[in-house]
Amino acid sequence: MLLVEHLTKSGVAVFAADDLELDIDVERRPENELAKHVDLFIAIGGDGTMLYAGGLAYADNVPLLGINRGRLGFLADITPDDMVESVDLVLAGEYSRESRLMLEATLNRPNGSVIRATGLNDVVLQRRETGRMLDFETRVADRFVNVHSGDGLVVATPTGSTAYSLSCGGPIIEPQLDAIVVVPICPHTLSDRPIVIPATKPIDVRLLERENTRGEVNVDGRAVAEIEPDDRLLIRAADQRISLIHPPGYDFYSILRTKLFWGRDSRARDERTR
Amino acid sequence: MLLVEHLTKSGVAVFAADDLELDIDVERRPENELAKHVDLFIAIGGDGTMLYAGGLAYADNVPLLGINRGRLGFLADITPDDMVESVDLVLAGEYSRESRLMLEATLNRPNGSVIRATGLNDVVLQRRETGRMLDFETRVADRFVNVHSGDGLVVATPTGSTAYSLSCGGPIIEPQLDAIVVVPICPHTLSDRPIVIPATKPIDVRLLERENTRGEVNVDGRAVAEIEPDDRLLIRAADQRISLIHPPGYDFYSILRTKLFWGRDSRARDERTR
Amino acid sequence: MLLVEHLTKSGVAVFAADDLELDIDVERRPENELAKHVDLFIAIGGDGTMLYAGGLAYADNVPLLGINRGRLGFLADITPDDMVESVDLVLAGEYSRESRLMLEATLNRPNGSVIRATGLNDVVLQRRETGRMLDFETRVADRFVNVHSGDGLVVATPTGSTAYSLSCGGPIIEPQLDAIVVVPICPHTLSDRPIVIPATKPIDVRLLERENTRGEVNVDGRAVAEIEPDDRLLIRAADQRISLIHPPGYDFYSILRTKLFWGRDSRARDERTR
Amino acid sequence: MLLVEHLTKSGVAVFAADDLELDIDVERRPENELAKHVDLFIAIGGDGTMLYAGGLAYADNVPLLGINRGRLGFLADITPDDMVESVDLVLAGEYSRESRLMLEATLNRPNGSVIRATGLNDVVLQRRETGRMLDFETRVADRFVNVHSGDGLVVATPTGSTAYSLSCGGPIIEPQLDAIVVVPICPHTLSDRPIVIPATKPIDVRLLERENTRGEVNVDGRAVAEIEPDDRLLIRAADQRISLIHPPGYDFYSILRTKLFWGRDSRARDERTR
Repeated sequence: MLLVEHLTKSGVAVFAADDLELDIDVERRPENELAKHVDLFIAIGGDGTMLYAGGLAYADNVPLLGINRGRLGFLADITPDDMVESVDLVLAGEYSRESRLMLEATLNRPNGSVIRATGLNDVVLQRRETGRMLDFETRVADRFVNVHSGDGLVVATPTGSTAYSLSCGGPIIEPQLDAIVVVPICPHTLSDRPIVIPATKPIDVRLLERENTRGEVNVDGRAVAEIEPDDRLLIRAADQRISLIHPPGYDFYSILRTKLFWGRDSRARDERTR
Repeated sequence: MLLVEHLTKSGVAVFAADDLELDIDVERRPENELAKHVDLFIAIGGDGTMLYAGGLAYADNVPLLGINRGRLGFLADITPDDMVESVDLVLAGEYSRESRLMLEATLNRPNGSVIRATGLNDVVLQRRETGRMLDFETRVADRFVNVHSGDGLVVATPTGSTAYSLSCGGPIIEPQLDAIVVVPICPHTLSDRPIVIPATKPIDVRLLERENTRGEVNVDGRAVAEIEPDDRLLIRAADQRISLIHPPGYDFYSILRTKLFWGRDSRARDERTR
Repeated sequence: MLLVEHLTKSGVAVFAADDLELDIDVERRPENELAKHVDLFIAIGGDGTMLYAGGLAYADNVPLLGINRGRLGFLADITPDDMVESVDLVLAGEYSRESRLMLEATLNRPNGSVIRATGLNDVVLQRRETGRMLDFETRVADRFVNVHSGDGLVVATPTGSTAYSLSCGGPIIEPQLDAIVVVPICPHTLSDRPIVIPATKPIDVRLLERENTRGEVNVDGRAVAEIEPDDRLLIRAADQRISLIHPPGYDFYSILRTKLFWGRDSRARDERTR
Repeated sequence: MLLVEHLTKSGVAVFAADDLELDIDVERRPENELAKHVDLFIAIGGDGTMLYAGGLAYADNVPLLGINRGRLGFLADITPDDMVESVDLVLAGEYSRESRLMLEATLNRPNGSVIRATGLNDVVLQRRETGRMLDFETRVADRFVNVHSGDGLVVATPTGSTAYSLSCGGPIIEPQLDAIVVVPICPHTLSDRPIVIPATKPIDVRLLERENTRGEVNVDGRAVAEIEPDDRLLIRAADQRISLIHPPGYDFYSILRTKLFWGRDSRARDERTR
């Protein structure tokens, strides 16, 4: 791979995870030990790859740089064409470092077992193998918020606000804002709307008893656990944040414009003669 | 039960399904033969009961009357308080008869097997046990419409337009309009919006190959089948319609106002000093 | 102009409106008499031009063809590059003719004065020079629907469903469906949703008394009249429809896909790892 | 008035604005000097009255208590029935004090004139006497965000997030979050969505030239100025915040539930048999 060769020639030590398929020879480390050995993670793929790499990097506070294999991503904001040049700039100290909020989901079961997962985008409660709505109850910082009926709930970071949350009607949140958004999925009650709360406040979710109810919890799109009415799902800002490295010129709004087709005249201007 | 007693006293022959739990003695028939024996179905419960009874009644063109156990329903529009009086009016010939569109879903599998189901509300394609989006392709009357990515698709009748479809952002459709609405569920593309089409046009849905894709088809909230990328889901207006019987004074908009809390001042008028 | 020259050479008599600025010599007629002299209107501009030309063509049932000066429009569906070829095909009889619903708005004032206007897209009630909400009451076929509070109301044809109505949350309606959509603009009550009704039913709108209320009526984006609480605004399908001429291969869904950026991967597929 | 009598008897000095119509005798002061003479503002009316009183109170940092004449308001959260008891509690020191973000709008004209206004809910750019869309450009902290086309823009505080902003599709924001939400009104581009930004960032809005464009700026529903394409509208968090006084037991979510009809079964639970 071009980038690995380039880095090696530049005298940079390159490590890859044990089980990563690569057609080039690099030093290998077990995936979950990589963070101990490196100063920078480079994720090559897309935003999904970034989410995955984020899980490896954040606990040891190793910064993460993303190269998008295809088009520009929200997280992987270097395109293949700019790859070598951008990475050189970063290694030369020309970059901005940005810290992003992560979420920690804890599912407490009545039997005392605890399941934990961390995500950069979102924690999602959703229906599982049922055509029936879920009924669930939310609390924010121990204040009762609402009993919701519907397809589930997205709790998203600012980073995740442009992912699934957006499809469910949530707002876009600037990455720098210390906030979490709670978005009901296809809610039965039409006035059940997204709520943006301070990142300091934990969110508590309990499934209510309902015939044929079956729910599951996903974090960044990965199934984490089934959830039962007696479980307690606690979602809070993780203690640690992840550091994203951007080459110079990073602009959140420019990425938004590109990804959301803003500024293109989707419907002809004068079609609505107004 | 009060109503059964009242009807029997009035000289009306009352039949119930074999397996229905009732604390009163009535003639019994197997559920799927009931329609051969009666001139009118009376469903007591709620709109869910109406949907179920509709499945028993429509094929034999037996009209259906709904009594809502709790509050007013969209379909079960007689409340317990008005029950006896309303049924008497209907039996005395004082009623309006309204015919409602039903949908027929056909799932054709590559091995030649065919699964059919009929619904009064909606046919839903949805994700099954996966955090990943579905990719699927729609055609209307053999015209390619779109490749959608998201949680799935609702195809609803006017009757179903006030149920799940509404939670997914679909419009309300007057029951008399011969139309079907196609509503993407939490679509990835924000401009992927509900489309209302003539009821004469069939809708074709195919799941596209995608890693970890698992879909299922629900009709009126009942799981009908899993769907695979090579299957073809065809949704069209059923040949037969169902007849709903309303007591005098039935008013669709009055029910809408009640169920959707219209006309109540939900947020205080002057809070938005505008 | 290339097209005029081409048509004249082909032996087609070309007429233009008196006051149309053209750098070429053609026969002129007063705008409102054009329809008496021609077999086909060709509108060159955009969808706005089409709406305007529609007003000239529809009363005399002259079909209308649209050439979009820029990119493809919803109505003006011939691009400059295909202009000569497409018009030749149409003149050779290779075309599809499609009839589109139009709306007639009638504003009846207490003093007996009547203001009428016809539109192909929509009739809009909106606020005028005020930061305060409008309160207004709607009826469909003389049935009371709702008291709405908000910025106003869009009543749109299927043609208009992809224009302003779509921005207000209305559904897309297939042009062939005989329906009208009633869409509240930024309604105060969050459950006040778009309603699709049969085109045979007239809609009645009355402004309610409210301090500082000032409303106006627009048709296809043109201001038609101010509206006062004692006025009555009646909106119904116009008796006459307009005929649109499309070159072979016209496809409503293909235009939708282009105009709404469907099928483009706006947010990177894997950003939402789902 | 009961409350005034009660306060006077309790030895509290009561002042009213000069021009306020009252059927009881109290000391009078010019409206804009009231804040110099009092330790607490009590607004009796509704949230609109609170917005108005907020304008009088905030500059001198006088706290504000709201009594709603009718039902519970978002801001005026004491009902008439609890009035005397609640005010007594507050005067006895039993209250919570909450500081709320306010917005300052500055309209800079090319001729050097400057118009300023402060609001507790929102600053709104909207169309004025025209059926045509506005085109306008936004910047956040000097970063270009987007060129928008549509009916205008709402910039709202957390307090204003439950008012007009909510009707335009904005999220609910917890009052404690230091954030501002920027919500396009009926945007032409369907992916032009609400953005939540840190309250430290100013927002810059410029109207773009467009035929028949006429815009105006409203603050908390009051018309402040017309806006022209060469003007610059700057919106930022005001230096001063306003202090709201709540009687014990104030609960933002409880008010949300009441005002938005949450937890009521608006559509019958089983109507969507899911």
